[in-house]
Amino acid sequence: MDSVTALGLIAGSLTTLSFAPQVVRAWRTRSTADLSLAMLIIFLAGILLWLAYGVVKEDLAIIAANSITAVLIGLILSIKAKHG
Amino acid sequence: MDSVTALGLIAGSLTTLSFAPQVVRAWRTRSTADLSLAMLIIFLAGILLWLAYGVVKEDLAIIAANSITAVLIGLILSIKAKHG
Repeated sequence: MDSVTALGLIAGSLTTLSFAPQVVRAWRTRSTADLSLAMLIIFLAGILLWLAYGVVKEDLAIIAANSITAVLIGLILSIKAKHG
Repeated sequence: MDSVTALGLIAGSLTTLSFAPQVVRAWRTRSTADLSLAMLIIFLAGILLWLAYGVVKEDLAIIAANSITAVLIGLILSIKAKHG
């Protein structure tokens, strides 16, 4: 793997894994009132378009990061939908 | 501009602008308790690495999206630092 792809994978790991503590926090507290619903929905739409962008450009880092991020944001959205 | 770059810029606009309602909400309510501090810090670190990745790959969409996102996350972090 070239160093540029490695840089992208590290970047993607950070932005993706950053949502893990948010999922844990939302799951534990069942409190997501301070999370903007508009943010979550618009962000998820953007993540899915980044995924398409990565597929078109055949960019492994972009594909990997955005597919996992989409799942995590989906989890946060489902907690917010259930508990407000 | 080619259609792939356009797709990336649309994707970047969505993920970047998604943080605007979160900034507004945090600013208005001064309440960010439900936002994970770990998420914000790790996410910002990742965004800065994505910015480096975009510069190395000379990818306009990645550079534009991540430079603006870094500013917005910085704003949210400063509100959280001040108001908890």
